[in-house]
Amino acid sequence: MRKIDPEKHAARRQVILDAAIVCFARKGFHGTSTAEICAEAGMSPGNLFHYFPTKHAIIAAIVEVERQETAEFFRELHEASDLFAALLGFMDVVLRLAADPVFSSLALEIAAEATRDERIGELVAANDADLRTALATVIKAAHERGQIDAAIDPEGGARWIAAIIDGIFGRIAVDPGFKPLEEAPMLHLLLTRFLCPTG
Amino acid sequence: MRKIDPEKHAARRQVILDAAIVCFARKGFHGTSTAEICAEAGMSPGNLFHYFPTKHAIIAAIVEVERQETAEFFRELHEASDLFAALLGFMDVVLRLAADPVFSSLALEIAAEATRDERIGELVAANDADLRTALATVIKAAHERGQIDAAIDPEGGARWIAAIIDGIFGRIAVDPGFKPLEEAPMLHLLLTRFLCPTG
Repeated sequence: MRKIDPEKHAARRQVILDAAIVCFARKGFHGTSTAEICAEAGMSPGNLFHYFPTKHAIIAAIVEVERQETAEFFRELHEASDLFAALLGFMDVVLRLAADPVFSSLALEIAAEATRDERIGELVAANDADLRTALATVIKAAHERGQIDAAIDPEGGARWIAAIIDGIFGRIAVDPGFKPLEEAPMLHLLLTRFLCPTG
Repeated sequence: MRKIDPEKHAARRQVILDAAIVCFARKGFHGTSTAEICAEAGMSPGNLFHYFPTKHAIIAAIVEVERQETAEFFRELHEASDLFAALLGFMDVVLRLAADPVFSSLALEIAAEATRDERIGELVAANDADLRTALATVIKAAHERGQIDAAIDPEGGARWIAAIIDGIFGRIAVDPGFKPLEEAPMLHLLLTRFLCPTG
């Protein structure tokens, strides 16, 4: 019996996910065939099937990777001495992701698909709930340190920060004049006034 | 030769658009056939074709109606004595539209399609540019009356208000706890702090 090398297995999985992300961003989930993902990954359909039995399993894995990366980011964020500054740093990461055409196309594709495919909708909603929990936890901890206005309800504040993140990707879809990396000062102003009006 | 009754023609067009909106919101543009739109509108394919030669023409008409309605809203808005309060009133209309499941599904569908179909992308971008121009005009007029902080650049402020509108619809897609009508106080707080921090 052949043994599976875990590192090799993980690396091959990542090659498939990277190939799929490129294809999905280019043509959408429905417009992409598994044959195209195989071609992009330089892999046979049989081999691909060994890692991901369905296209849906690939999408689920992409969303799961994003969840893990966000969780990791927020674990580190809590070590910052200034939590509001760290939150602005997170928003700068969001702007950088929005400036990446592959990432932003994929984000819009996932958001659209979430409204039609119940399973993807559940995965995305779970990620979003995790993000809001992480943001609310930051706001609560910042309250204790006097770094965010105590009048901002953690859950409500988190919800509107999440809305602003959605909005950043929405801009990418419709507004060619929206240059995410140039928008950092205005976004910082908006969040500072919203969350620390007297700061 | 048969004469066209303009009122009857407009009414029939509207019946088709309303039927198409229901179908698109339910199954997306690609998932909806013209046969389904005909069935929903209670009309023969030949009759539908007389009003709209393609599915794309229907989508274009829906986006155009939205453009006209927004323009009309902002023409009236400028008659308000308090432009910032009127702007908050506009955002309350946005929350009401977001609370309408058919409208919000359609908005997400259009945003997603704009990234893939160049013609729809152009229509949506033109509408968005009109909206931002209208918002920037309100901010400029409000500057003159001291109703919005002069430090808010009209174009930049308009761009972030548009992002917040995108974000409201983004919430609908992923966050079942986001109840648009209940979010008015937090949205008002956010916009008041952003646009009139000393107001």
